[in-house]
Amino acid sequence: MTKVADSQAIPTTMRAIELRSFERTPGSLAIVARPVPRPGKGQVLVQMAAAPINPSDLVFLRGLYGIKKSLPVVPGLEGSGVVVAAGGGLLARALVGRRVACSAPPGGDGTWAEYMVTSAAFCFPLRKEVSLEQGAMSIVNPVTAWALMDLARHGGHRAVAQTAAASALGRMILRLAQRFGMQAVHIVRRDEQVELLRSLGAQYVLNSSRPEFDTELHKLCAQLNVRLAFDAVAGEMTNRLVRALAPGGRVLIYGVLDGAPCQADPGVLIFTGKSVEGFWLKDWLRKKSLLGQFLAMRSVQKLLPTDLRTEVQARLPLEDVAKALEQYVSGMTRGKVLLLPRQP
Amino acid sequence: MTKVADSQAIPTTMRAIELRSFERTPGSLAIVARPVPRPGKGQVLVQMAAAPINPSDLVFLRGLYGIKKSLPVVPGLEGSGVVVAAGGGLLARALVGRRVACSAPPGGDGTWAEYMVTSAAFCFPLRKEVSLEQGAMSIVNPVTAWALMDLARHGGHRAVAQTAAASALGRMILRLAQRFGMQAVHIVRRDEQVELLRSLGAQYVLNSSRPEFDTELHKLCAQLNVRLAFDAVAGEMTNRLVRALAPGGRVLIYGVLDGAPCQADPGVLIFTGKSVEGFWLKDWLRKKSLLGQFLAMRSVQKLLPTDLRTEVQARLPLEDVAKALEQYVSGMTRGKVLLLPRQP
Repeated sequence: MTKVADSQAIPTTMRAIELRSFERTPGSLAIVARPVPRPGKGQVLVQMAAAPINPSDLVFLRGLYGIKKSLPVVPGLEGSGVVVAAGGGLLARALVGRRVACSAPPGGDGTWAEYMVTSAAFCFPLRKEVSLEQGAMSIVNPVTAWALMDLARHGGHRAVAQTAAASALGRMILRLAQRFGMQAVHIVRRDEQVELLRSLGAQYVLNSSRPEFDTELHKLCAQLNVRLAFDAVAGEMTNRLVRALAPGGRVLIYGVLDGAPCQADPGVLIFTGKSVEGFWLKDWLRKKSLLGQFLAMRSVQKLLPTDLRTEVQARLPLEDVAKALEQYVSGMTRGKVLLLPRQP
Repeated sequence: MTKVADSQAIPTTMRAIELRSFERTPGSLAIVARPVPRPGKGQVLVQMAAAPINPSDLVFLRGLYGIKKSLPVVPGLEGSGVVVAAGGGLLARALVGRRVACSAPPGGDGTWAEYMVTSAAFCFPLRKEVSLEQGAMSIVNPVTAWALMDLARHGGHRAVAQTAAASALGRMILRLAQRFGMQAVHIVRRDEQVELLRSLGAQYVLNSSRPEFDTELHKLCAQLNVRLAFDAVAGEMTNRLVRALAPGGRVLIYGVLDGAPCQADPGVLIFTGKSVEGFWLKDWLRKKSLLGQFLAMRSVQKLLPTDLRTEVQARLPLEDVAKALEQYVSGMTRGKVLLLPRQP
């Protein structure tokens, strides 16, 4: 039943990172030997080349992600590799031998391993000019940035605001806004991030730690008629956006950096017709047809070398996962940390 | 220019309540003599018969309402009376001599006076069977209840949840839900309110002060597929609704009883596609055509003697405004307190 790529010899066991507890204890993550999984109908086996650590992985490790899998489980929401075997199904078989970006199946093991089985529908063949390294980071951030800007453009917005603007995703939104001629107000928390974004050509950058922040945000939102904000911080920051947006404004929450509940003044919501809404890439994709997903991924891949590129600060083997997490958490702005299942 | 009803002799001065400060000080409200205002083009002069105290009036008195008027000003958002004069305009002239429900103009003096000038578009002729007393309370609560249920019905919902369910407005929602065969989960804060709503035929009533509340709310929302909640409380209650609603759920905030900012877990918003939105009757009406408003008001008036009736706990003259406010605030569940500009 299983179609296997001729040139590949698939071993029976592999190394993988295993999450054993949602508590952050020393033994919660371990490197283990596991049997290489076998693809079922509609599934493929991907020999993993690279997998990044994303903020959503950190949320997953704490057991707070939208999909809570049973333990033990291999973490890792996205990555890239080569499809080396397929279970039944036309799409799955067509992928064998292809370089793909892939995301983990909702119910099973993820990308932080030498091999992963996932649905063929969660694999996107990489264009020639896209490296496996960039391809490994082509779903979570680039597609989210694309989706958010897509909502802005098709919602008739000519200006947006965003928090955590110096993050990898924030910089993608910045570059897409430049490409599409959309005005954007970028919110960061430190002065050096202001400088960084200005050096990328950003016109409106505000530091939320400064006392004049709320007044200036309010002024800019009125001046540019900003009625849409992308918020990865939540907590009290959400309320600062709610208050500042032009009437009818929507705050889309896509991240939880603050960790505290979103705040919103009821009077402001009521009397200025505003709202606070969650945004999850999975839901955005689910509402699209397969063709719609394919077209979005094609647009994204075309921009991977430019607007949607990701900086990498370190590449580490699976064995160094603890060090990799530490390095990422201590300086997210410096770039992604990639896990490489096989040393190059 | 001004058309005057023949049978009316309009005096030159009137008694009115004047708000002089948004601080709650002894002198902030006073009864004063003022010149009777004159209607301009498109406006009418209403000889007021009755005007209620609503929660939104309390918000207005504190300067927190969506429309902040310059002081001193006559408060009072709605009332009833007889149109005794009209400025220019077809609609205004057609209203002369009619008994109307009326709301205050956005920029001017309100209903807590012997006379009020307002736009003809803010006056709704009362049907024969509607008394001036019920007509005085026919806009703020009944139309809000109607509008919220309209959103539920046209949004394809078969079940809703509501907080402050024992309030005048909450009981209207309860009766409309019964009329339209919509399942409803009613949330109150005291056991005697549970009893009250059960005596009105409510099937699902929860007391949010009880320890099992969140578990039971969650269970009911799943069982009845509740994806829409009407929240007049805000604060932490909003988050309890956000968590409990079925995936994709919306919390519509229409009141601010708690006074604290709405809370909402960002992870829940993101991963279950939920939202928190403001609802303001003025915006709902604004989106309707004049005909649409007329039809909504007609539906509401037909139900005023039954589903949309309001209980009255006291009727007091303008002079007793301080006492009236005190009595209303200390027991809203007992019914509305009406101000009667002229003693009957």
